Amino acid sequence: MTDAWANAAGGERRVTAVTVGADLHLELRGPGLRTGLMDALREAVRTGRLTPGTRLPSSRTLAADLGLARNTVADAYAELVAEGWLTARQGSGTRVARRAEPRTKTAPGGPPARPVHRRPTHNLRAGTPDLGSFPRAEWLAASRRALTAAPNDAFDYGDQLGRVELRTVLADYLARTRGVYAAPERVVLCSGFVHGLSLMAQVLVARRGRAAGKAAGRAAGRAAGKGRAAVAVESYGLDFHRDILTAAGLRTPALALDELGTRTEELSSGPGGLRGVDAVLMTPAHQFPTGAALHPDRRAAVVDWARGAGGLILEDDYDGEFRYDRQPVGALQGLDPERVVYLGTASKSLAPGLRLAWMVLPRALVGEVIEAKGEVAAVPSAMDQLTLAEFISCGAYDRHVRSMRLRYRRRRDQLVEALAEHAPECRVTGISAGLHAVVELPPGTDERSMIEAAAWQGLAIQGLSGFRHPSVAPGRDALVIGYGAPTDSAWAGALDALCRVLP
Amino acid sequence: MTDAWANAAGGERRVTAVTVGADLHLELRGPGLRTGLMDALREAVRTGRLTPGTRLPSSRTLAADLGLARNTVADAYAELVAEGWLTARQGSGTRVARRAEPRTKTAPGGPPARPVHRRPTHNLRAGTPDLGSFPRAEWLAASRRALTAAPNDAFDYGDQLGRVELRTVLADYLARTRGVYAAPERVVLCSGFVHGLSLMAQVLVARRGRAAGKAAGRAAGRAAGKGRAAVAVESYGLDFHRDILTAAGLRTPALALDELGTRTEELSSGPGGLRGVDAVLMTPAHQFPTGAALHPDRRAAVVDWARGAGGLILEDDYDGEFRYDRQPVGALQGLDPERVVYLGTASKSLAPGLRLAWMVLPRALVGEVIEAKGEVAAVPSAMDQLTLAEFISCGAYDRHVRSMRLRYRRRRDQLVEALAEHAPECRVTGISAGLHAVVELPPGTDERSMIEAAAWQGLAIQGLSGFRHPSVAPGRDALVIGYGAPTDSAWAGALDALCRVLP
Repeated sequence: MTDAWANAAGGERRVTAVTVGADLHLELRGPGLRTGLMDALREAVRTGRLTPGTRLPSSRTLAADLGLARNTVADAYAELVAEGWLTARQGSGTRVARRAEPRTKTAPGGPPARPVHRRPTHNLRAGTPDLGSFPRAEWLAASRRALTAAPNDAFDYGDQLGRVELRTVLADYLARTRGVYAAPERVVLCSGFVHGLSLMAQVLVARRGRAAGKAAGRAAGRAAGKGRAAVAVESYGLDFHRDILTAAGLRTPALALDELGTRTEELSSGPGGLRGVDAVLMTPAHQFPTGAALHPDRRAAVVDWARGAGGLILEDDYDGEFRYDRQPVGALQGLDPERVVYLGTASKSLAPGLRLAWMVLPRALVGEVIEAKGEVAAVPSAMDQLTLAEFISCGAYDRHVRSMRLRYRRRRDQLVEALAEHAPECRVTGISAGLHAVVELPPGTDERSMIEAAAWQGLAIQGLSGFRHPSVAPGRDALVIGYGAPTDSAWAGALDALCRVLP
Repeated sequence: MTDAWANAAGGERRVTAVTVGADLHLELRGPGLRTGLMDALREAVRTGRLTPGTRLPSSRTLAADLGLARNTVADAYAELVAEGWLTARQGSGTRVARRAEPRTKTAPGGPPARPVHRRPTHNLRAGTPDLGSFPRAEWLAASRRALTAAPNDAFDYGDQLGRVELRTVLADYLARTRGVYAAPERVVLCSGFVHGLSLMAQVLVARRGRAAGKAAGRAAGRAAGKGRAAVAVESYGLDFHRDILTAAGLRTPALALDELGTRTEELSSGPGGLRGVDAVLMTPAHQFPTGAALHPDRRAAVVDWARGAGGLILEDDYDGEFRYDRQPVGALQGLDPERVVYLGTASKSLAPGLRLAWMVLPRALVGEVIEAKGEVAAVPSAMDQLTLAEFISCGAYDRHVRSMRLRYRRRRDQLVEALAEHAPECRVTGISAGLHAVVELPPGTDERSMIEAAAWQGLAIQGLSGFRHPSVAPGRDALVIGYGAPTDSAWAGALDALCRVLP
């Protein structure tokens, strides 16, 4: 225990930060550690356990205290500096930022105190939309209309699929804008994409168990069941998506990627093909994060595979509404609604805080997914379900998506222009779509040093290698630049900062 | 497959109802079957797959088709009759109710069509508050203030504990009204009580595994880990609470009950005591459903047990705000905040549709619960979290609870008076509190026949035996009457119908 920590802790053992860190170390492996440490540090600052100006132990010391790799701690520090929680100055070490005052107490009767959350000075991480553009007034107006008109039973424990009002409106919307073959009784509402993915993981594990049981009788089935179910994933993607599948007991072999998207032909059972795959998780409209759109031949190939092998396609359509160079290609689901599970979310189009996502299921899966949901029956808030139904059906959702599409398109164009001018050796790859771009670095420039240089500029960015499947060999060094997160007023400054950092 | 079903299904295989029923049969056992079948039937009526007037197969035939016990189907039919989905007439069989029209389609641009959900003609089942009293205007006003004032990052992926605004306000509220020793950093927001309970189940299973691993080394630990963790439960309670614990791999031995509440002395390790119990799940303020308040000696005893045995108490304070004969007794948690996990919910005080509940944790558990939440990080909607924080801090929550307390108290008094007049042989037991009462039936009158008679009157009620732990011998026949669910205008009619049914 270093002085700074003991200091912050006082007499009582209040260093939850350290406790949490240590627990994570004992219990988890891999990519969750940095996040856990960052959460613990933020919480310690937010609650005042670590006071402004406090000097933190060096990353080497804290790493030794917590039994973590030094890089994990150094990365966490760098990101927290970028987010404005900490400051790092040469010769002065890493300290709690002066302006990150502890949360003040709520005045009795008054509105809750505005919490002192610090966004990054510049946040160019992928995955977050422009939260400053959340349409508060329109949302509140829709909420007023929806809650005023709702029948009393809308406030009851909901059914496991979710409110029929929203399922009906979403079915129409997805058919119209994404070519999804939808019907309200196939739509299941979830608390975010990750919830939907974990339900599908449960379904696949249960199916494999059942099939093994049927084939070989009960006792032998248990042994046969050890051939674990598998979900093929793209060789670049989000680690915590893979983690959810792995935690459910699934294998996650990787499919290679090129400019035409995921090499779905590797699913076929020929030589070099993957074997024993039950499903494939894909981002066909806009591969995350590399940015390709899946080639039509490969769209056909994956559907053929699914039909021939009895497999399922899990289509993660996280940003399908945001295409800038042409009309968006319709969802893969339209090609075979009985083989594709379509997963969409309000997290990119509106806000992650809604915790609202949807699945459109093959008819035969509805019962199994309801079963997986179980008694916990996590459905999103009835208030939000009713409000979103009204928000879509009154046209406000279409207007909001259109306006955000223009805004993100402009930012993408500005990013490409600025890089052409200030960092001509860097190359922006991927289709003109979504809320992020991949910037390939010139030979001799590595991701790690770019990310560190950016952190010193108060700029949070990510490297492409952080999205790489563990079984895949390192590729070219590149950055993943999310241009969604900054507010309109912050965007120009963020882009300037990025240009200063790039070679 | 009977004619009615084939008829409703048309050419395509659309009988999800049957599929779901059959799947449940294959996958689940016990109390979930009836609910699953009811959900499937409701959905089939709602979506028009079963049209008004259609005659359903007899319960005997459908039971045979689905491989269910005939009682399960008969019970489901009876409840759906009570809810107004089906009609049952002597000589005409069970049919889809005429007024339960299929859902109409949303007019483009217009608000979503008002769904044709049918409440029971009279619903006197326990567990639902008066949804007609949900304070829509005050909620919307709080929502407007909260969403207008919120920082942008309130709409982002939240932290795993939940929004600090709500945790802060709740900590104050729970300290003030329930004597809970709370601090914002110990409060964890969940999507309903059941979510909180399943997190605690995970934590307990993980702890047992770790302890076994530590004691005996890694390999031996796995074998030793087979001594399953256990949560003692009250001998009457909700079956799906027990199911959650069981599904997580926990044993759930039962503690006996008497008029002084749960016999917590059975936890002690003496002769006849339960052994190897890691935690106990209790409703000390108002035992659900039998209605006792835990005697002070037993409150002390359970805390002593927890300290001595290193156990945890899971305090389900579902209706602690509703006591009518005196000031509510403070939460057990106040006696030892490091041994008691306090679980509260907005489902009774406001509405279940919010999917919003809270835990106040021993400090040492915060990290473990965050770990159990994992990447799925189910937190309630940011909109609702911010709104509830504002709703509490502006005083609207206190006003609402006060007003509902008066309303429920009046209903309970009327229930007691009406039974004294019309059914003097029935006895209302339990303290004057909450949203339900237990009505003991006179000898020679059985629950089952009362429930069936009630269904024919369009009245949904429950028997006490449905809450009995499977290991406990049957007790006296009694009904559990929930007086919370009817609206004010429906209450008198519901009470009349009940008096007509009772002996």
